[in-house]
Amino acid sequence: MSKVRILEVKQSVFANNDAQAEALRADLKEKGVFLLNLMSSPGAGKTTTLARTIEALQDEMKIGVMEADIDSDVDAETIAKTGAKTIQLHTGGMCHLDAEMTKQGLEGLGSDDVELAVLENVGNLVCPAEFDTGAVKNAMILSVPEGHDKPLKYPLMFSICDVVLINKTDVLPYFDFDMEQCRRNIALRNPDALVIPICAKTGEGIEEWTDYLRREVASWRA
Amino acid sequence: MSKVRILEVKQSVFANNDAQAEALRADLKEKGVFLLNLMSSPGAGKTTTLARTIEALQDEMKIGVMEADIDSDVDAETIAKTGAKTIQLHTGGMCHLDAEMTKQGLEGLGSDDVELAVLENVGNLVCPAEFDTGAVKNAMILSVPEGHDKPLKYPLMFSICDVVLINKTDVLPYFDFDMEQCRRNIALRNPDALVIPICAKTGEGIEEWTDYLRREVASWRA
Repeated sequence: MSKVRILEVKQSVFANNDAQAEALRADLKEKGVFLLNLMSSPGAGKTTTLARTIEALQDEMKIGVMEADIDSDVDAETIAKTGAKTIQLHTGGMCHLDAEMTKQGLEGLGSDDVELAVLENVGNLVCPAEFDTGAVKNAMILSVPEGHDKPLKYPLMFSICDVVLINKTDVLPYFDFDMEQCRRNIALRNPDALVIPICAKTGEGIEEWTDYLRREVASWRA
Repeated sequence: MSKVRILEVKQSVFANNDAQAEALRADLKEKGVFLLNLMSSPGAGKTTTLARTIEALQDEMKIGVMEADIDSDVDAETIAKTGAKTIQLHTGGMCHLDAEMTKQGLEGLGSDDVELAVLENVGNLVCPAEFDTGAVKNAMILSVPEGHDKPLKYPLMFSICDVVLINKTDVLPYFDFDMEQCRRNIALRNPDALVIPICAKTGEGIEEWTDYLRREVASWRA
């Protein structure tokens, strides 16, 4: 029996997701809640990166996490162990979250006292990129084993992200991954993206990432 | 300038994809074309596995490949070098292919003389699982870096696949991947799935996979 609460979120009945997302963002601004939308392929390391991020920041700010999945609650169990407020969102087969689903998730989480809320989106490089969730910033994780050509193949995802974390740098020696070519491919899609190589397993690069979050949360709540 | 032809495929205007898929399969049966639908996450190794597969089988049977992507033709260029008949399908942002899009792809490829046609689907563990493409068999690749918990998180994909290839076994020493646990997780979703560990880079396991394809193509064309 899982200790984490599971919420079945329902897709919006409203046609205009962009307007819903803007309204949610305005509401979050008023409440001082910074919402980060974290995306990646399956298995790129969202949950491990998030656990490291919570570990680094939880003494400074109140953190809440929404774990979105088609099914299962394995990630929510992992995150709940960090001590962060956690809720599991089940999407009922949907490949993404829209602003309405995110809003339901925030209500389920009870986010009014949360300073940094993180939505761990469904593992998918296509659909989540098409829906504004109402987040203040979008971040994605590309892992070394996936290859440096991914920005060419999933252009929308890379173009909408403020930050690209390149994870699993510890296995760089075992893969044909060209970091400079990867940076050039990302820049083709999004010249403004902040690119941070990290290793969630060893902690490498996590400081640069959490420094970014500290600045952004402070600026949003100012 | 790309040497591979690029076709923009359009989603079906028909509501009943299942009926369209059955009709396509019947047509393929009549023509003696075996269609394999190959799916995976981004970067799991579909293209490298496919290049190995073509190398092993191209002296025995006529092979045609449809490379589906949101954008880019990097994979089609790789496959065209193997000598197999190749076409690039662009999905116009769509996260999957349905039976109508697959039919357009087969027509664009010119598949009447092809014995083994392969559809390399969009890299995504969610949406492609929801649409019957008309393929005779569905196969997916799960790569070691993604982790052995993926069958728990993407249940539909694992339940509709006849074969699960576990790729990148060469990096098993560098990841916390439990092969036996992975087999148990797959069996939970699909007790009938054939599971074959492979390494597309070194060729390990490719013989078991191509033997399976030889048998299935022969049986379909009998």
